[in-house]
Amino acid sequence: MHAYRSTTCGALRRADAGKTVRLSGWVHRVRDHGGLLFIDLRDHYGLTQCVVDPSAPAFKSAEAVRAEWVIRIDGDVVIREGDTVNPNLPTGEVEVRIGTLDVLSKAEELPLPVFGEPDYPEDVRLRYRFLDLRRETLHRNIIQRTKIIADMRKRMVDAGFTEFSTPILTASSPEGARDFLVPSRIHPGKFYALPQAPQQYKQLLMVAGFDRYFQIAPCFRDEDPRADRLPGEFYQLDLEMSFVTQEDVWDTMEPVIRAVFDGFAGGKPVTDVFPRIAYDDAITKYGTDKPDLRNPIEMQDVSEHFRGSGFKVFAGMLEKDKKARVWAIPGKTGGSRAFCDRMNSWAQQQGQPGLGYIFWRKEGDALEGAGPVAKNIGPERTAAIAAQLGVGDGDAVFFVGGDPAKFYKFAGEARTRVGEELNLVDRERFELAWIVDFPFYEWNEDEKKVDFAHNPFSMPQGGLEALETRDPLELKAYQYDLVCNGFEIASGSIRNQSPETMVTAFEKVGLTKADVEERFGGLYRAFQFGAPPHGGMAFGIDRIVMLITGAKNLREISLFPMNQQAEDLLMGAPSEAGAKQLRDLHIRLNLPKKEA
Amino acid sequence: MHAYRSTTCGALRRADAGKTVRLSGWVHRVRDHGGLLFIDLRDHYGLTQCVVDPSAPAFKSAEAVRAEWVIRIDGDVVIREGDTVNPNLPTGEVEVRIGTLDVLSKAEELPLPVFGEPDYPEDVRLRYRFLDLRRETLHRNIIQRTKIIADMRKRMVDAGFTEFSTPILTASSPEGARDFLVPSRIHPGKFYALPQAPQQYKQLLMVAGFDRYFQIAPCFRDEDPRADRLPGEFYQLDLEMSFVTQEDVWDTMEPVIRAVFDGFAGGKPVTDVFPRIAYDDAITKYGTDKPDLRNPIEMQDVSEHFRGSGFKVFAGMLEKDKKARVWAIPGKTGGSRAFCDRMNSWAQQQGQPGLGYIFWRKEGDALEGAGPVAKNIGPERTAAIAAQLGVGDGDAVFFVGGDPAKFYKFAGEARTRVGEELNLVDRERFELAWIVDFPFYEWNEDEKKVDFAHNPFSMPQGGLEALETRDPLELKAYQYDLVCNGFEIASGSIRNQSPETMVTAFEKVGLTKADVEERFGGLYRAFQFGAPPHGGMAFGIDRIVMLITGAKNLREISLFPMNQQAEDLLMGAPSEAGAKQLRDLHIRLNLPKKEA
Repeated sequence: MHAYRSTTCGALRRADAGKTVRLSGWVHRVRDHGGLLFIDLRDHYGLTQCVVDPSAPAFKSAEAVRAEWVIRIDGDVVIREGDTVNPNLPTGEVEVRIGTLDVLSKAEELPLPVFGEPDYPEDVRLRYRFLDLRRETLHRNIIQRTKIIADMRKRMVDAGFTEFSTPILTASSPEGARDFLVPSRIHPGKFYALPQAPQQYKQLLMVAGFDRYFQIAPCFRDEDPRADRLPGEFYQLDLEMSFVTQEDVWDTMEPVIRAVFDGFAGGKPVTDVFPRIAYDDAITKYGTDKPDLRNPIEMQDVSEHFRGSGFKVFAGMLEKDKKARVWAIPGKTGGSRAFCDRMNSWAQQQGQPGLGYIFWRKEGDALEGAGPVAKNIGPERTAAIAAQLGVGDGDAVFFVGGDPAKFYKFAGEARTRVGEELNLVDRERFELAWIVDFPFYEWNEDEKKVDFAHNPFSMPQGGLEALETRDPLELKAYQYDLVCNGFEIASGSIRNQSPETMVTAFEKVGLTKADVEERFGGLYRAFQFGAPPHGGMAFGIDRIVMLITGAKNLREISLFPMNQQAEDLLMGAPSEAGAKQLRDLHIRLNLPKKEA
Repeated sequence: MHAYRSTTCGALRRADAGKTVRLSGWVHRVRDHGGLLFIDLRDHYGLTQCVVDPSAPAFKSAEAVRAEWVIRIDGDVVIREGDTVNPNLPTGEVEVRIGTLDVLSKAEELPLPVFGEPDYPEDVRLRYRFLDLRRETLHRNIIQRTKIIADMRKRMVDAGFTEFSTPILTASSPEGARDFLVPSRIHPGKFYALPQAPQQYKQLLMVAGFDRYFQIAPCFRDEDPRADRLPGEFYQLDLEMSFVTQEDVWDTMEPVIRAVFDGFAGGKPVTDVFPRIAYDDAITKYGTDKPDLRNPIEMQDVSEHFRGSGFKVFAGMLEKDKKARVWAIPGKTGGSRAFCDRMNSWAQQQGQPGLGYIFWRKEGDALEGAGPVAKNIGPERTAAIAAQLGVGDGDAVFFVGGDPAKFYKFAGEARTRVGEELNLVDRERFELAWIVDFPFYEWNEDEKKVDFAHNPFSMPQGGLEALETRDPLELKAYQYDLVCNGFEIASGSIRNQSPETMVTAFEKVGLTKADVEERFGGLYRAFQFGAPPHGGMAFGIDRIVMLITGAKNLREISLFPMNQQAEDLLMGAPSEAGAKQLRDLHIRLNLPKKEA
């Protein structure tokens, strides 16, 4: 027989009764039932109930066994009778009568219990991650993560992509965040950088003629701790394609991502055809470029109903300011004064002056709009608003007015709040959408200048001609995001592969050709030697896994995460370096005063 | 029609004749044949011959086109006649008559030609890697590399392994080489290290119960430039298994690796059943633990034939020194004085006193051993040597004598030399073998102490008892390599997962329990909480790809390699960091004097 196991702890079934087997695994728990000892033996594949009676030679060693010891047992498979069957366990119809038992590895007193997964402080969980990872939920999440990634890989290959690994020790890539630096031993005073993303390399692969690239790419950003990003490294499904329009990218990736969600959603519905929503429309309908489309509320412009009306706050605003608008947030089933007042108080807590509203109720056969706004604008305008928004008895509408550029975020939050409070959001589904036509530039109010709104590598719609002839702030980019349930899960663009257009685009933000050469030397040089039109995108793997598993915390879907202070408590990183190491790397410490 | 292409440059066949197509790609070359312009258009998928005649509207723009420009053409597919068919090209039966031609991207004068792949200095090739990668051989090698890796992945998954990504920003892993360090911004004076291998993490995964791990793992060693290793990063197929013996590891991985070689060997034979050769036998038969088994020569101990013989050098040596031995290197077909003398001179060039030999020839019906050694030991002993080694007319045998620990390397080199010079090596095959039972400890002559021979993590054969009772230098480890054609392509072991055995093993090399805790804290701690028996190995992907593709240089199978000075000439790394960056990272430069 094999030294450790003839089968795994997840394999035995009714049909195996009568066999003599050898199992190895962890002692999940030990129970003493009237003299009989029950040992639940666990491995990666499952759990098998093992039992030993006091007459068996193994009884003595079994009595010594404690939770999380690693043991090997030899025994006979027997069928469980009647109500001793455990229907929740694949192996629940049988148990193994232990003949012999050997201890392969003992466990000291556990700093963190595995069985039952009780809540435990995060630092203990991270320090004893090897125990934490034995817990059922985390173990399953991690395996789910590996399966999702394997599925992505397979689907990308099936879609004609080739996986390439790009360098990790490289030059700074201008993604905007802080780089991790690596001192060079061979070149005193010089440093490598860890890539924030393989952006330049993947574009170089297109210039090198490889046509369809992807990578499960480790990315590194030295950012301050944020709840939604692990310190240090994270993974992207990164891809790039040559000779494509943005529609090609969407048409290629939409089936891949839909299938990944479908395959792991556990039956939750997934958007069949991802809507393509222009950035400007996303802002006016949802108040955000990451709309949660499980929330059915769409905002509408109702300015015309307030222009010249008796609601002086909005009427005056609309008259004075050409940019001013009034947006309406319909709240079906929200038609009670109590709810509307609650929303109004919430708005005040958010630092707003309040949230105007109308709610509708039947007075006999007539539909009547109630609340101060309705009173001020009168029944005709109130009825017109109800008609435009399709609301009726028992519904409410909330109003936000002013310069949309200033209020859209709050309006979006109010939309979310209304949807959640009224339970309009169907949480048990995945709603995906493309957000497209992002602005190319934005106005930097602090520096009073034009800046890139997103990715300086992307191609402005209309190309060089548009750059040269149109108002920069009106230009759109071939730049797109994929959003799911209110989160951006991917971002991408068609790239600007023309050296001339690139320089012109940078000039608008006050940079010169020399700046371009300095910052993007490798790529800019490459574009002078025959660069194909190309584009791509990158998907945030952590976020996708969180959405699919329903995990609330990045550390619930990551194998060996650092804590929020960017420390690896398990391995003890970061740590001090030796004097010789520092000398070899041509660096010296420069500690803050108090520690110096 | 699609904006850029209705099909690729590798797709058109005879059956497509008559179709109107759109192609985009790089101008591979332009030829002017009696007014007609031929443009070979190239993309990732292939090459299509396009032609334009002077009467076509596109002729003018076609005339301007130069090599490596990116163009788009619309045209009709026509069948090539008679000897204009190119049988070497999958698209060679057709050509495309260009109707319209658009330039998508021009190319400046090329610093490195693509067509014809003429030899070019390596620094130019690395600086313009995006051009270099368009060249047929390198492009094909890189794609071959990606296919080999994809195949490994698939076979590992099929063998029940799960792919995990382990952290890249971590603590120093004690693999013996120099670490790359990453200064921490958040923790002044502390550093992360890039992993030399995911050794500790993969073992922790086993302790966490994941059973079968693999990873295409980036590894980082800050080593001085070596011809057989790229500076910086390299990739391993890394794996680990729980509840296994070393035979399980071999039995699991042998079919995976055989299939990878079989699949990409282009018909070259691959070893069917990998022999398992004990380290000690490898040394005595081949003079190395990385034998090239394409060379059929096996050395043998022929000491007995020289003991008390007339060949005083060896006879005296054997009498004086109990450790002394004489090894014989049989050289079939090497039986000429000219060849034997050449080998002798070669040995002298290697700093040896010479290389004794006998060669055999027929004198009438009698087989006669010739040369000074044969004369000294006489015909009987000469015949006994011939009989033991199975050599005869026209063959030679070379002799090396002394302390095998001192001469085995040279003997191995002589074996290689004899095999190569006599053309006994069949280069067109892959000979794989397991080298097993490596010594656990070795004698460090400089420090006069016992050291780990290989991996301190591996389990000594016989476990704790053997450690406590036997001569350390006689202990073997559950430690193994896989070799192919004279290269080590993988290494692994069954791990020492017992804290007690681990501490005892370290004590023998003069380290304490405290040292173990300090150096392997994460792992040592983990072993106290129920650690399964486990083992694994790691395959050098670069070496395997080199063997399979026949590439002679690592840069011929690597995407964006650094040069031998650890510089990325394409991206300009390493480079200087800004003063603020250094301040943020709490470090200062400490430059060598002359530059300070």
